[in-house]
Amino acid sequence: MKTKIRIALAAGVLCAAPAWAQSDQVTVFGTVDLALSHLSNGGGATTSMSHSGGNISRIGLRGTESLGGGYGAGFWFESGLNAKDGSAGGPAGNFWNRRATVSLTGPFGELRLGRDDSATFLNTLIFDPFLTNGVAGTNSFLMNGAPIQISNAVSYFLPKDLGGFYGQLQYAWAPASTPASDTYRGFRGGYASGPLHLSVAAAQLGFTGAGKLKIANLGASYDFGGVKPSLIWAQEKRDGGLSVRAIQLGASASFGPHLVRASVGDYRAIGGAPDTHWRKFGVGYAYNLSKRTMVYTAYGYVHNGSGANRAVAAQGLAVPGNVPGHSASGLDVGVRHFF
Amino acid sequence: MKTKIRIALAAGVLCAAPAWAQSDQVTVFGTVDLALSHLSNGGGATTSMSHSGGNISRIGLRGTESLGGGYGAGFWFESGLNAKDGSAGGPAGNFWNRRATVSLTGPFGELRLGRDDSATFLNTLIFDPFLTNGVAGTNSFLMNGAPIQISNAVSYFLPKDLGGFYGQLQYAWAPASTPASDTYRGFRGGYASGPLHLSVAAAQLGFTGAGKLKIANLGASYDFGGVKPSLIWAQEKRDGGLSVRAIQLGASASFGPHLVRASVGDYRAIGGAPDTHWRKFGVGYAYNLSKRTMVYTAYGYVHNGSGANRAVAAQGLAVPGNVPGHSASGLDVGVRHFF
Amino acid sequence: MKTKIRIALAAGVLCAAPAWAQSDQVTVFGTVDLALSHLSNGGGATTSMSHSGGNISRIGLRGTESLGGGYGAGFWFESGLNAKDGSAGGPAGNFWNRRATVSLTGPFGELRLGRDDSATFLNTLIFDPFLTNGVAGTNSFLMNGAPIQISNAVSYFLPKDLGGFYGQLQYAWAPASTPASDTYRGFRGGYASGPLHLSVAAAQLGFTGAGKLKIANLGASYDFGGVKPSLIWAQEKRDGGLSVRAIQLGASASFGPHLVRASVGDYRAIGGAPDTHWRKFGVGYAYNLSKRTMVYTAYGYVHNGSGANRAVAAQGLAVPGNVPGHSASGLDVGVRHFF
Repeated sequence: MKTKIRIALAAGVLCAAPAWAQSDQVTVFGTVDLALSHLSNGGGATTSMSHSGGNISRIGLRGTESLGGGYGAGFWFESGLNAKDGSAGGPAGNFWNRRATVSLTGPFGELRLGRDDSATFLNTLIFDPFLTNGVAGTNSFLMNGAPIQISNAVSYFLPKDLGGFYGQLQYAWAPASTPASDTYRGFRGGYASGPLHLSVAAAQLGFTGAGKLKIANLGASYDFGGVKPSLIWAQEKRDGGLSVRAIQLGASASFGPHLVRASVGDYRAIGGAPDTHWRKFGVGYAYNLSKRTMVYTAYGYVHNGSGANRAVAAQGLAVPGNVPGHSASGLDVGVRHFF
Repeated sequence: MKTKIRIALAAGVLCAAPAWAQSDQVTVFGTVDLALSHLSNGGGATTSMSHSGGNISRIGLRGTESLGGGYGAGFWFESGLNAKDGSAGGPAGNFWNRRATVSLTGPFGELRLGRDDSATFLNTLIFDPFLTNGVAGTNSFLMNGAPIQISNAVSYFLPKDLGGFYGQLQYAWAPASTPASDTYRGFRGGYASGPLHLSVAAAQLGFTGAGKLKIANLGASYDFGGVKPSLIWAQEKRDGGLSVRAIQLGASASFGPHLVRASVGDYRAIGGAPDTHWRKFGVGYAYNLSKRTMVYTAYGYVHNGSGANRAVAAQGLAVPGNVPGHSASGLDVGVRHFF
Repeated sequence: MKTKIRIALAAGVLCAAPAWAQSDQVTVFGTVDLALSHLSNGGGATTSMSHSGGNISRIGLRGTESLGGGYGAGFWFESGLNAKDGSAGGPAGNFWNRRATVSLTGPFGELRLGRDDSATFLNTLIFDPFLTNGVAGTNSFLMNGAPIQISNAVSYFLPKDLGGFYGQLQYAWAPASTPASDTYRGFRGGYASGPLHLSVAAAQLGFTGAGKLKIANLGASYDFGGVKPSLIWAQEKRDGGLSVRAIQLGASASFGPHLVRASVGDYRAIGGAPDTHWRKFGVGYAYNLSKRTMVYTAYGYVHNGSGANRAVAAQGLAVPGNVPGHSASGLDVGVRHFF
C-alpha cells in the first residue's frame, strides 16, 4: 500500500507579488445582514429596511505571520457596513471604525495596539442571546456612555493555554472623541471550559474636564447540550450623573438548523429626574440554511415604567420617539450571510 | 491497493481563518478608467483628466455560496472610484454607493435586499453603445430625477431559465435622500435570446410632500454578427413639473479587437419655461488590447435648440456652463482596465 | 483496486466570476505601524499613540496584466491608514488618497495616469534613513507647499533596462486643491546601480491667481556593505514668498536583524519676517523580527535658532505649539508590520 500526498500551492503562487505584499497573507471576510422591520410605540409606527438584526454587518481584512518559536505577528482591520444604503465605517471618515490593530503574539500572550473593542463591551455582547442586535437585542440599554470600540488602545491578553482561564488588560489615551475623553483603564477576565463560561469586566473612563464613568459587568452561560441559559449583569455609574443598572436573563436552544432564543431584561436609570425603570422581552427564531447563511425573525417588547420612554430599535431605521410610560415593540424578518 | 490523494491547497486553506471567514469566498474586482478630455461650449473650454469615459470605475467584493438543491446565497459590494483624485463612493460616507446587497437564490429566482441599481436605470445604460459614459454617452440626458442606485430595496428576479425571458420587481423605502423620497415601485422585463434583446421598465417614485415621478423606458438591440444597432426610448414625467422625453439610436460594430460606436439622440424637456429641445451625436473608436484592457477615443456633439443650454460632460471634469442655443462638444482619449 | 482522488482547487477556480473579474489578479497589501510617542517642547509635553513612525500605514490593491510582446497593463490603489483610530484616506472622502492609477507598460517604458506620488517627493523620502517618518524623520521640514501626492497626473517613465539610469516626466492639471493649484510640471532622473544611487528632481507648481512654487532636490547614497551614508539637498522657492533650503546627512547600518539609523539636517526658511534657521538630529534602532515585522525606537531633537519654533512631530499625535528659540524632542517605541 502506498499513500502519496501532493500539495500544490495555489493562491500563494498565483498572487505572487513583490517582497512584503502577498495576498495569501490577507483574509477578506465579512457579514451582511438585512431585515424588514416594523417598529411601533407611543410616538407612531414605521416599517422599512434595517440592518444587522442578526449579526453586525462588516467587511474586514486580517492576517497572521509566524515568527517561529511560538511567536507571531498579525493585523486586523474591520469596517462597519450598512447595506441598506451602502455606507461604511463610522463618523468623520473613520472607515476602519470597528477595529484597526497590529499584534505581537507569543508564549507570553498577545500585545495588541490600535482601535479595538473595549474590554468592557464584550460581556454585554456575547452573553446576550441576540448579541445586542435587532429588535430583541439589548441594543444600547446596557449603556450609559461606555464605549463599544476605543481608539489609541494598548491591550495585553493572557496566553490561550491556561486551562480555560483568559484575561485582558487595556489602556487607552483619548479613547473616544464624543464627548472628549482622557483615558480608559479596563480589564476583562473569565473562564470558558466545557459547558461553562463566566466572565467579568470593569473599567474607568475619564472625560476631559468632567467626572469619570465607572463600568462593570458580568456574564455567565452554561450549555446543557444545545440549550444554553445566560446571564448579564451590568452597571455604569457616572460621577455626579446618571447610573444605569441592568440584568438580563437569556436562553438559546439549537436543534439541528433551528435556533430559538429568548431574553428578559430589567433596567434602571438612577439619578435622573425622575429615576426610570423599564423591562425588555425578546424572542426569536432562526433557521440556519448553512454555517454561513441564516434567516431569522425576532420580536422585542419594552414595558416602560412611569417616566421611562425607551423604544425598540433596529439598526439603520429611525425610531419614532416614544411617550413616557408607553410600551414599545418591534419585529424583524431578515437574512444574515457570512463571507 | 493504491490510494492516491492529491490535495492542492487553495486560498481557503492558506488563508485559513475561523469558521465563517475564508477569502476564497470573496472575489475582489473592479474597473479603472481614465481619459484626457477636452470640453467646449458657449461658456468656454477646458482640458484636463476625466474618469470612467469607457466604463464606470469601481472596486468591489462579491461571492456566492451553494446551499444545495439549486439554492444559494450571495453578496455584492461595489464602490465607485474616481482615480483622478482617489476619491471613492458617494456623498455622506456612502462608500459602497454602487451596490450593497445580500441575495437568496433558487429555482424560484432571486430575492435580493439592499442598495442596488434601480430597475429603471438598466435599460438606459445597456442599450447605449457608450453605456451612458464619457463625452459620447447619454450622460444624464435621459434623466429627470430618476435614481441610478436606490437604497432600502427589495427585488425579486425571475429564474434564469425561462427561454430568454427575464423579469424583476422592485420596491424600496426612502430610496434616495436628495430630494427626500418615500417609495419606489418598479419593474423591468425583457427577452434576450440569440441576436435579439428587448426590454421594458417602468417605475413610480414618490417624494415626501411633493408629487410623483413616473419613469418608463424601453431598449432594443439586434446583433447582425458583430454589427449591433440599438434603440432607447425613455420618458420621465414629474407630477406638475418637468417631463423629459428621449429617443436614442445607436450602433456598435466589432471587428476583432476594433470597436466602432455611434449614436444620435433626440431629447425634449417639456413643462419648463420654455420647453427645450436638443440633440446629441456621439462617435467613438476603441481598441481592445485584451479582454481586460481597452484604449478608446470618443467625440460628442450637442446641438441645442432655442432656450436649451445642455453641455457635453465628462465624469470628474467640471464643465463650463453653456449659453442657451449654443452647441457643445467634447473629446476623450482614454484607457480602461478591468481587474 | 485503485482509488484516485484529485482535488485541484485554485483560487481562480473557486472565485470563478464573469469574464473580467478574478481575484487572482488582485493583490491586497498594506502596512500597519503604531507607536507610543512622547513629544516635548516649549509649549508642553504629550504622551500617546502615534502611527506610521516606521513606515507609512496603508492598505492597497494592485495587479498587472500581461498583454504579450513585453507589453502590459496594471492598476494600483492605495489608501492611507491611521490605525490609532481606524480612519482611512485623506480629506473630503479621498479614500484612495495615496495612489489611484492605471498604467500601460512596454519596451517604451510606462505611461501612468491618475493620482500618484509627485516626482519631486520621492527623493525627499527614500534618501532619509527614517523615510521622513516618526520623531526622527524629516517630516515636513523639507517642504514649503510642495505636494506629496498629486491628482490628475500623467507620467512617463523610462524603460527599466537602461543600465541603472531611470527617469520620469510628470504633468498634472489642478494637482492639489488646498491651496487651489493650476498645473504641476516635474521630472525626476537618477542612476542606481551596485552600491551607488543618485537622483535629482525638479518641478514647477502653479497656483490659481498666485505665484509659482519652484521645487528642486537631490539625493545620494552609497552602500558600503551594510553601512549606507546618504544625502538630501532640497529647495522650495515660492515667487514673492518664503523659500526653504535644507540639507540632510544620514546613515543607516544593517547587521543581521539589527538596523541603526542616524541623521542630521540643517534647514533655513528665507523671506519670512524674520528668516529662521533650525537643525534636526535623529537616531534610531530597529530590530527585524522577520522581513515583514519590525520593532523600533527612535529619538528626534530640534535645535531652533532665533525666531524658529519648529517642533518634533509624530503622525496622528497633536504636538503642543513650540516657543520661538526653544528646542523640541520626541521619542517613539513602535511596531511595523507589512502584509
